[in-house]
Amino acid sequence: MGERKGLKNRGYSEEDAEDRRAAVEEFAGVRFEHIGRCGMDYGCASKNIENMIGVTQVPLGFAGPVKILGEHADGDFLVPLATTEGALVASVSRGMSVITRSGGATVRVFGDAMTRAPVFRVRDLAHCVEVMEWIDRNHPAIEEAVSSTTSHGRLVRIEKFPDGRNLFVRLSFSTGDAMGMNMATIASEAVCRLIESNTGAVMVSVSGNMCSDKKPAAINVIEGRGKTVVAEVKVPRDLVSSALHATAESIAETNTRKNLVGGSMSGMLGANAHAANMAAALYIATGQDPAQVVGCSMTLTTCESLDGDLYMCVRVPAVEVGTVGGGTRLPFQKEALEMMGCYGEGKARKLAEIVAVTILAGELSTLAAQAAGQLGNAHERLAR
Amino acid sequence: MGERKGLKNRGYSEEDAEDRRAAVEEFAGVRFEHIGRCGMDYGCASKNIENMIGVTQVPLGFAGPVKILGEHADGDFLVPLATTEGALVASVSRGMSVITRSGGATVRVFGDAMTRAPVFRVRDLAHCVEVMEWIDRNHPAIEEAVSSTTSHGRLVRIEKFPDGRNLFVRLSFSTGDAMGMNMATIASEAVCRLIESNTGAVMVSVSGNMCSDKKPAAINVIEGRGKTVVAEVKVPRDLVSSALHATAESIAETNTRKNLVGGSMSGMLGANAHAANMAAALYIATGQDPAQVVGCSMTLTTCESLDGDLYMCVRVPAVEVGTVGGGTRLPFQKEALEMMGCYGEGKARKLAEIVAVTILAGELSTLAAQAAGQLGNAHERLAR
Amino acid sequence: MGERKGLKNRGYSEEDAEDRRAAVEEFAGVRFEHIGRCGMDYGCASKNIENMIGVTQVPLGFAGPVKILGEHADGDFLVPLATTEGALVASVSRGMSVITRSGGATVRVFGDAMTRAPVFRVRDLAHCVEVMEWIDRNHPAIEEAVSSTTSHGRLVRIEKFPDGRNLFVRLSFSTGDAMGMNMATIASEAVCRLIESNTGAVMVSVSGNMCSDKKPAAINVIEGRGKTVVAEVKVPRDLVSSALHATAESIAETNTRKNLVGGSMSGMLGANAHAANMAAALYIATGQDPAQVVGCSMTLTTCESLDGDLYMCVRVPAVEVGTVGGGTRLPFQKEALEMMGCYGEGKARKLAEIVAVTILAGELSTLAAQAAGQLGNAHERLAR
Amino acid sequence: MGERKGLKNRGYSEEDAEDRRAAVEEFAGVRFEHIGRCGMDYGCASKNIENMIGVTQVPLGFAGPVKILGEHADGDFLVPLATTEGALVASVSRGMSVITRSGGATVRVFGDAMTRAPVFRVRDLAHCVEVMEWIDRNHPAIEEAVSSTTSHGRLVRIEKFPDGRNLFVRLSFSTGDAMGMNMATIASEAVCRLIESNTGAVMVSVSGNMCSDKKPAAINVIEGRGKTVVAEVKVPRDLVSSALHATAESIAETNTRKNLVGGSMSGMLGANAHAANMAAALYIATGQDPAQVVGCSMTLTTCESLDGDLYMCVRVPAVEVGTVGGGTRLPFQKEALEMMGCYGEGKARKLAEIVAVTILAGELSTLAAQAAGQLGNAHERLAR
Repeated sequence: MGERKGLKNRGYSEEDAEDRRAAVEEFAGVRFEHIGRCGMDYGCASKNIENMIGVTQVPLGFAGPVKILGEHADGDFLVPLATTEGALVASVSRGMSVITRSGGATVRVFGDAMTRAPVFRVRDLAHCVEVMEWIDRNHPAIEEAVSSTTSHGRLVRIEKFPDGRNLFVRLSFSTGDAMGMNMATIASEAVCRLIESNTGAVMVSVSGNMCSDKKPAAINVIEGRGKTVVAEVKVPRDLVSSALHATAESIAETNTRKNLVGGSMSGMLGANAHAANMAAALYIATGQDPAQVVGCSMTLTTCESLDGDLYMCVRVPAVEVGTVGGGTRLPFQKEALEMMGCYGEGKARKLAEIVAVTILAGELSTLAAQAAGQLGNAHERLAR
Repeated sequence: MGERKGLKNRGYSEEDAEDRRAAVEEFAGVRFEHIGRCGMDYGCASKNIENMIGVTQVPLGFAGPVKILGEHADGDFLVPLATTEGALVASVSRGMSVITRSGGATVRVFGDAMTRAPVFRVRDLAHCVEVMEWIDRNHPAIEEAVSSTTSHGRLVRIEKFPDGRNLFVRLSFSTGDAMGMNMATIASEAVCRLIESNTGAVMVSVSGNMCSDKKPAAINVIEGRGKTVVAEVKVPRDLVSSALHATAESIAETNTRKNLVGGSMSGMLGANAHAANMAAALYIATGQDPAQVVGCSMTLTTCESLDGDLYMCVRVPAVEVGTVGGGTRLPFQKEALEMMGCYGEGKARKLAEIVAVTILAGELSTLAAQAAGQLGNAHERLAR
Repeated sequence: MGERKGLKNRGYSEEDAEDRRAAVEEFAGVRFEHIGRCGMDYGCASKNIENMIGVTQVPLGFAGPVKILGEHADGDFLVPLATTEGALVASVSRGMSVITRSGGATVRVFGDAMTRAPVFRVRDLAHCVEVMEWIDRNHPAIEEAVSSTTSHGRLVRIEKFPDGRNLFVRLSFSTGDAMGMNMATIASEAVCRLIESNTGAVMVSVSGNMCSDKKPAAINVIEGRGKTVVAEVKVPRDLVSSALHATAESIAETNTRKNLVGGSMSGMLGANAHAANMAAALYIATGQDPAQVVGCSMTLTTCESLDGDLYMCVRVPAVEVGTVGGGTRLPFQKEALEMMGCYGEGKARKLAEIVAVTILAGELSTLAAQAAGQLGNAHERLAR
Repeated sequence: MGERKGLKNRGYSEEDAEDRRAAVEEFAGVRFEHIGRCGMDYGCASKNIENMIGVTQVPLGFAGPVKILGEHADGDFLVPLATTEGALVASVSRGMSVITRSGGATVRVFGDAMTRAPVFRVRDLAHCVEVMEWIDRNHPAIEEAVSSTTSHGRLVRIEKFPDGRNLFVRLSFSTGDAMGMNMATIASEAVCRLIESNTGAVMVSVSGNMCSDKKPAAINVIEGRGKTVVAEVKVPRDLVSSALHATAESIAETNTRKNLVGGSMSGMLGANAHAANMAAALYIATGQDPAQVVGCSMTLTTCESLDGDLYMCVRVPAVEVGTVGGGTRLPFQKEALEMMGCYGEGKARKLAEIVAVTILAGELSTLAAQAAGQLGNAHERLAR
């Protein structure tokens, strides 16, 4: 039958996509008027998806301009946000406006490494110790194994976590401007094969979850993954009052009771209002991996009144982004990156700084709104 | 100047979007060839975004068909996935094929409530106790406050967490087929105002983070949020071998060492391989809130060999989805829902079941691939 | 040989203990001058230990008096503390003195139930649902099973946590003035046998770790175990200055940066300075289970300046204590309980309130000392 | 009045203790027959407690002999356990008997450092970076500051965790055979003063909770504190059957469902049955700090069937013990250490190995008992 054939079509051309789409329509008994409205050449997505039948179009807005005083992002930026959550762009924009009128947000990148942590099965504790010692004695060979798989990646750290018949090895890679997950995985596999052949340890999984990718884990809060980025702003007292309709004290109180105390009482990793919202919208717009929003969802937001001025800071432990490869090659995503001057080589840390500042803007706006008792109202007015 | 005017344009028409887009181009010194290729009427996104300048097009593929034996989803389904991560759709499809050939995945929804947890400032512990007692005595009035804000939402549970001058009240709402966050927020605010006026407690934030929305918190692992969904499959021994090139024992070992042991050692909430991947792709395709992928990232995956057959199960603690409202109204997203017969009233639990089975398929495929030592290879072949 | 015989002596008399002690001396090649100095009849410890060879004598001091405004503990108390950590008693005493001069600490018990959470192996998800439904339909039979094992214990709550082939059932018991672990375990086993025989589920462990006993688990932070107790004090501004040599602002700042922020950044359950210290000393003195100090180590300490007065509060999520049975029967321990009027029936909540206030006193003193930069100095002076 | 005078007596002699004891009796309206039966010279506790009025006598038993194949503990040991929990010693002894008959437990110490993590207030992010850079440039001066306070301690690692206006610095010290908390605190204070005077950063607390002492924190699971110790045993199939009345498969299943799955579902740090029990009994017997049982409560227990033989392993992340100083100087505690050849210089790692093996023995016995369905029965028979 037709649909059966279409469903199994594995081609990457527009005709293949149409064939599949027709088959899906027949299978599901529906008619697609929109999904097929693909604004790019199908071929350009061939490394990004299989079984393509069209596109999902996500509304794209912008927030800003926002003044950023980063090491890599320095100037005024408009930030692309792809979202379907009414009020989000408006809220971030409000935060950015306040940041800009406050003189800008300072931001710094601390640590920049992608991790993979294979788990090995070893025979017993004595063997575990042997393997650990082999690793310690053979860093050059291990680095060579890495180099054999990548010219951009470089091994920067090896951590070993023994547990009897399990040995976890957390490998940290400098990955240039790629997000680096695939590079790290392939390099790690080469390392694993080397360890296996020299020690008799057996790689059970190239990812033993001490990486940890796309899962909320304390190890990433503590050691970071990708880029750990801290961004801050100091909002003058008058502006807190006139633009946010609140006081620094009330916003700091909201942050303490909600994020710090509420975060502790709920058993939370991190402590923030809605960092994942900003990360998701910016990640989708720019072709990042939206599952890595998890790394941003563990953001720690802190807030103080400095003699009536508002100090707010976000510590984003794991900004896992790239400006080359992956989804960044796609035309819509590429344009969104270009909108911030973030496409291509030498731009990943700049993008990471913008991610953190965008999160800061969203936290600022939402915490201020909650301090002023307006959250429900805003949603009521702008969304349903 | 033109761009200044365009950047401040707050309209929702196509012309407004074009005006903004031109202003952004001027501001950023770029030219957008793609972003403006919007395949829907701009007006229909008016409740989903502000400052719209166009769209992000995310490649859309399908996985499946997958046989689902749910209470709400019962039959064979094709699942839409919007992603830019090469190999993801192929991997999920492989998992779905194995599930289907195994007779299907069983799935059940446990618990179904959206939560909001305001935090109140109270004067002291005595006052805290008073407020708690007032709440206990006034459930009818509280329910009435809820009803005054919504006809679909219903308050199903009130939990109180006292802490001296902080009182957290976790309100759980049945929200029909809406994801329900806004409904819950608005209703909670009405409850808060009632409590404030009767007790002197002051609502510091309508969301005190014991909700917890879009943050990884143990309270959602334990109590659930949205829908807690469990899905399982039993793969016959022969199929494990022929289709997954592994054994049940090796896959179970991989799951134990990687997810359970590695999860514990990394301080993880949940224990899975990459649940967030599947959730993100399905959420984006269907207009769900992609930041709520966090709720799925805490999935617990378990795995056993049953006399050589493979048993695998995912427990997804917080599937926060809707089939009405929010992003589901947008035309591309609506069509993706229709592809599964999941658009509109009476479909939210069905969608939640499909989410869990899709996660199961992805876990199955990836864990099997890791057990067979193929992860790096797959990425090498299909993606870069 | 003599020592072999002695080592295997299983008797409970003083002679048996001497026989064993001599055998241990011979085995280890040492001479015990102190361990044999047992100040109680050996027989009275027959239910508390096996292989007894003597005693460990832990120095016992007292802190206080402290004024407590509890529901159960109301008045001025001296609190017995058994410790070997120099400066601890002095520090707690200082805190108690400040509390008393401030008019006392208010304290309330919220929730009072001991939990056991068996884990069952079920055949699959369908079976899991069946077992859950059987439980829901058979509360009276389950309560009867409990009653058959205990006259003091009463089942107050049943929670079910399904996970495919695992079903966790968290049973909460009111256990009178006993700490209640054994009572809960025995009753839970009876419940398990009933469930097994009616449903075919197999009890894999009567304790499936969702209890959770003596392990740090978020479920106990959220739901509590034993007694959840909150204690607070308001210290007038002048006293903060004269007695603590600090300001309310500086102490609150210390608490925020150290406990709330530092707690979040370290992936901590709870947020306190050293709650476990006070719990350990009081638990050892009064014959509680010192491993249950873990339940107190998850205390949340909060602190604010109220116009210059210091407000401090501790939320101790799991005070698992008893005033009958267990170690409370031993003569030294009994006397320590009597010192607070806490021995015997009707006293467990009173003791729990004293535990929380003692923790509060220790937190107050230490946080104030840290705010004043004195911690190292104090240890330098009083201990080495 | 007399009691008032006695309560304020701050002396360390026997007469002072008697004076206080009499005052306490009068205050509390009780008569102490036991507490005064102090089997040691009061003066020797002068650095361990204040306000001493006597002693708490905790029943002391022994478990073992247990064969240990450690790097530091090598041979057969009897282990002193001070407890009031009936069945504990018997259970540990059973485990030790099985371990010994299996050829012994292998054990290794990984990492050995005591940590203190001051938190500084800095002016802003730029200042934070400056202070971090100052630290990086001034390791020699920092080490000198440490040396000025201690001859035994040595700084082995400095980690920096920035967060806007908070800078956490985790200092790791080699502390010889002392547990090292005080040494680390005093040295850290010296480091803080140096940093303060050179950078303008303000030490808010010498302990910023990223240490973390006596609190359950993921950072200690991941990085360890004190000694991270792993111990394992392989029990032959026949012995599993004859001595434990179970199979390796059933015990491994119990461990997986209870500890690994149950641990994940309850939001636990670590995954074990009752590691804190063994740690508490051994810590109290040997004069360790019983509040540091928390570090052991995060133990990870793993278990496998190796072709019918039972493999069991415990990973104890934070064994914070010493064999000099603190409570080890007290005569009863000293004798307990001598019983294992663990008193004095050069013995701390040996003791740490014994701690881990004792935990292993208790885990083995309890998990086997639960696998055999005997837990409740054992308590019923031996304790009430």
